[in-house]
Amino acid sequence: MEVTRRNFKECLDTVYSAIEEADFLAIDGEFSGISDGPNVSALTNGLDTPEERYTKLKKHSMDFLLFQFGLCTFKYDQTRSKYIIKPFNFYVFPKPFNRTSPDIKFICQSSSIDFLASQGFDFNKVFCNGIPYLNQEEEAQLREQTEERRNQHANGIGTPSYISPSSSKGPAHVPEEHKVFINRVMFQRKLIYQTLNWKFPKGLHVETIETERKERYIQVSKVDEEERKKREQQKLEREQEELNDAVGFSRVIHAISKSAKLVVGHNMLLDVMHTIHQFYCPLPEDLPDFKEVTMCVFPRLLDTKLMASTQPFKEQITNTSLAELEKQLKESPFRSPQVETAEGFPSYDTAQEQLHEAGYDAYITGLCFISMANYLGSFLTPPKAYISSRSKLIEPFFNKLFLMRIIDIPYLNITGPDLQPKRDHVLYVTFPKEWKTSDLYQLFSAFGNIQVSWIDDTSAFVSLSQTDQVQIAMNTSRYAESYRIRTYAEYIQGKQDKEKSGQT
Amino acid sequence: MEVTRRNFKECLDTVYSAIEEADFLAIDGEFSGISDGPNVSALTNGLDTPEERYTKLKKHSMDFLLFQFGLCTFKYDQTRSKYIIKPFNFYVFPKPFNRTSPDIKFICQSSSIDFLASQGFDFNKVFCNGIPYLNQEEEAQLREQTEERRNQHANGIGTPSYISPSSSKGPAHVPEEHKVFINRVMFQRKLIYQTLNWKFPKGLHVETIETERKERYIQVSKVDEEERKKREQQKLEREQEELNDAVGFSRVIHAISKSAKLVVGHNMLLDVMHTIHQFYCPLPEDLPDFKEVTMCVFPRLLDTKLMASTQPFKEQITNTSLAELEKQLKESPFRSPQVETAEGFPSYDTAQEQLHEAGYDAYITGLCFISMANYLGSFLTPPKAYISSRSKLIEPFFNKLFLMRIIDIPYLNITGPDLQPKRDHVLYVTFPKEWKTSDLYQLFSAFGNIQVSWIDDTSAFVSLSQTDQVQIAMNTSRYAESYRIRTYAEYIQGKQDKEKSGQT
Ligand SMILES: Nc1nc2c(ncn2[C@@H]2O[C@H](COP(=O)(O)OP(=O)(O)O)[C@@H](O)[C@H]2O)c(=O)[nH]1
Ligand SMILES: Nc1nc2c(ncn2[C@@H]2O[C@H](COP(=O)(O)OP(=O)(O)O)[C@@H](O)[C@H]2O)c(=O)[nH]1
Repeated sequence: MEVTRRNFKECLDTVYSAIEEADFLAIDGEFSGISDGPNVSALTNGLDTPEERYTKLKKHSMDFLLFQFGLCTFKYDQTRSKYIIKPFNFYVFPKPFNRTSPDIKFICQSSSIDFLASQGFDFNKVFCNGIPYLNQEEEAQLREQTEERRNQHANGIGTPSYISPSSSKGPAHVPEEHKVFINRVMFQRKLIYQTLNWKFPKGLHVETIETERKERYIQVSKVDEEERKKREQQKLEREQEELNDAVGFSRVIHAISKSAKLVVGHNMLLDVMHTIHQFYCPLPEDLPDFKEVTMCVFPRLLDTKLMASTQPFKEQITNTSLAELEKQLKESPFRSPQVETAEGFPSYDTAQEQLHEAGYDAYITGLCFISMANYLGSFLTPPKAYISSRSKLIEPFFNKLFLMRIIDIPYLNITGPDLQPKRDHVLYVTFPKEWKTSDLYQLFSAFGNIQVSWIDDTSAFVSLSQTDQVQIAMNTSRYAESYRIRTYAEYIQGKQDKEKSGQT
Repeated sequence: MEVTRRNFKECLDTVYSAIEEADFLAIDGEFSGISDGPNVSALTNGLDTPEERYTKLKKHSMDFLLFQFGLCTFKYDQTRSKYIIKPFNFYVFPKPFNRTSPDIKFICQSSSIDFLASQGFDFNKVFCNGIPYLNQEEEAQLREQTEERRNQHANGIGTPSYISPSSSKGPAHVPEEHKVFINRVMFQRKLIYQTLNWKFPKGLHVETIETERKERYIQVSKVDEEERKKREQQKLEREQEELNDAVGFSRVIHAISKSAKLVVGHNMLLDVMHTIHQFYCPLPEDLPDFKEVTMCVFPRLLDTKLMASTQPFKEQITNTSLAELEKQLKESPFRSPQVETAEGFPSYDTAQEQLHEAGYDAYITGLCFISMANYLGSFLTPPKAYISSRSKLIEPFFNKLFLMRIIDIPYLNITGPDLQPKRDHVLYVTFPKEWKTSDLYQLFSAFGNIQVSWIDDTSAFVSLSQTDQVQIAMNTSRYAESYRIRTYAEYIQGKQDKEKSGQT
């Protein structure tokens, strides 16, 4: 089901009940770009620590927009032994809510845009009809503003008609040439409100109306007491509704979060980071705080890319990219899960690839999860063909998010400290920027097989095959002038020292 | 005429001849945003110097994308006493040309996007079908690469199949897991080329073909010498055409530039800056260098907003925004110009506003220019109803670009030094951030009418109505603790000192 600003409100109950009844949820996001700094392969290093990786993604990925959000709910029908699915494809855009709302800027990366375009992505649905949203702080601010206006109004002070949140100086930011005019209008409006309140304390209902075309006028109606109360009540409700409209798509994320259901994604670290960043709060500085926030928003996550890269799937699955994974999980020893699209939802056909519509990717991700979960059941005695998302068998995969291209740390552990692989065999080498990989191979030719992980133009990690070679390499390099070798431990120490001195 | 990637090549000759035959050209751009820093009114200060304004716009506006370019050509038909117009609406997008081309990132501002959406802007035309482009340096680089590949090929070295321009280390940036595979493919390709060249020095034509789906394969054909030459020639032509395709929309700007025709725009500083930045070169650091580049790209500019704000139009025209200006220039003492849309071009109807499609805005801008130019003819004896774009009467308006919201400098003078208005009556005041405009009014209440131009939270310019009040204000403030007053001259001096010490 495609959801835009046009049909969001009428779809919301359907979304809520789909989440409510589901056994688990699958999600996927499409972004306006991936990295605003170096390209992805230069950004990520095979020997990043989880902290380093988090910091890099936070710095170079969060200014892009998550503009399509796919949600697919899966509910198991016991009697028919199949899953009933409800897929949703939400288009999301930070349309300014009113004159005082923040004017969001976001980055687009032409390669990402071009990729989506080649997949038939409809940008007009995002930019013209995207569902607006607010994060928690913006929502709180707006509630406060509404509250304040209501109180002022109740006290007969009138509505302050020009608030600029970006400036504590209010009218100072009005363009010079309009200042006199705006001040006059504000003053007139105030005068009208006050005079009316004073002259007709009861018999009038006064209201500022804003038309579609942003023209504002004051509507004065003569009413009896009962009618007046009714209108006030209606106004309150309308304000509440406007507030809800502004919170917009965030309400869907809140519902997912509140449900505390299992949320499945494929290679979902960026999806999780973007979702929190856009709909909850700016990402915390440090990784432990990020983990804490993540657990509040998504108490139970499962990453199918991590699952597919782990025992007992690792041996069976040669390519863990989503499209390939889905194909492999249709073949023996795995089995395609039995699913059926709920009535009223357009059904996806996996034979006819529709990749990179977020709703479809979420659906496929859910299928992969079911196949893998059920495969785990085949090891039971007696074997079980259906494994529920609440089964103990899948608990080992909870809250571990796949870390791309890190050699020795497969996942980010959201519920605890991360793995700390030994990196005793790793050297940190610095050299002139003319060096190429072949220079490093030559330098270490005596040590057999090495692995090079570039950091930047003038440094790289070199992993030796044996740890006891490290000391030899260190010794032979002692008098070298063009390059320098440090152990991995020295490198980390140096980095920490630098951070400390930077902080004080 | 709407021009996208789909029909660009077949339209190009029409565009070229329209420019060639025109008496003058009108242009307009639509951007993905205006300011990535403070909002426009906070960014611009009424007492900016032209240098400051240029620096601010360069810093806060150039990361947006110019994604729609309007061009309307105007050719005067003597015999029928009317202009024949050809309007074009180009959609522009930096689609990556191949694997080695730069991956452009640009910012979108939600208010600007939302505004365009409300005007019915078609974002798919930009993002899916926008015409690509290269600036001069990118073009030169691509030509060099093509040349190099051709030479290598001629020498039988084979095509290097993986070049990453962002890294001098080549294969080092290939994801770890693909390295072995890619190196093998490269090696195989090289081997095939070399063996074939050696075994069949003449009788074969060998070529790497890339399909739409980015799959590459080697095509080997057995041919005689003549056929071989013909194919080599065809290949050369194809390469040349691919190069031209990559230069794309920049070719239109080159044609405008080469024609050296009068280019008319409305409030066109940002249009000019974006056009140069996107299609020629990154903007220079300093204003004088910008002026020089501008004169190379657009030797003759005219800004209708500046024209409308200058004698003898200033008195007649109350609102110089484009839509309003166009309306006023239809009424006495002005006259609607006689224009006709050339055959084969869809005609615009000015009664039915279509504002903010760049092609339409360019058209309207041209109309405004003609009305104003002809009005100047009414002062001649005998009066003339038609004033050509080559008339001496409009020369005073050449190469002066309107400066928005600067109190005492109406325009940026592209062909010489800027106006240096006296600012002897201006004070630079610093104060605690709690201060509001009213505090400043109170502080200077003894001096009659003042004008406040906010700089930031803790400083503002205050213009006094009389210069001789400056000394009094300075004296009375001598012992003040909460605020500080400097003369404008002192402020400028301090700024220059700071810049100097920053540079050394
Ligand atoms: N650097 C970095 N890039 C990522 C990350 N997640 C996704 N990407 C980028 O997004 C692309 C698509 O990822 P996705 O489809 O989710 O996973 P895949 O199909 O398994 O490669 C990847 O090839 C990366 O370029 C991440 O955590 N770090
Ligand atoms: N700060 C700044 N903003 C500009 C400039 N040019 C255009 N803008 C912004 O773009 C908007 C539309 O400009 P435009 O339609 O070209 O001129 P207008 O119709 O005369 O206001 C303005 O209201 C400004 O917000 C400039 O030189 N400086």
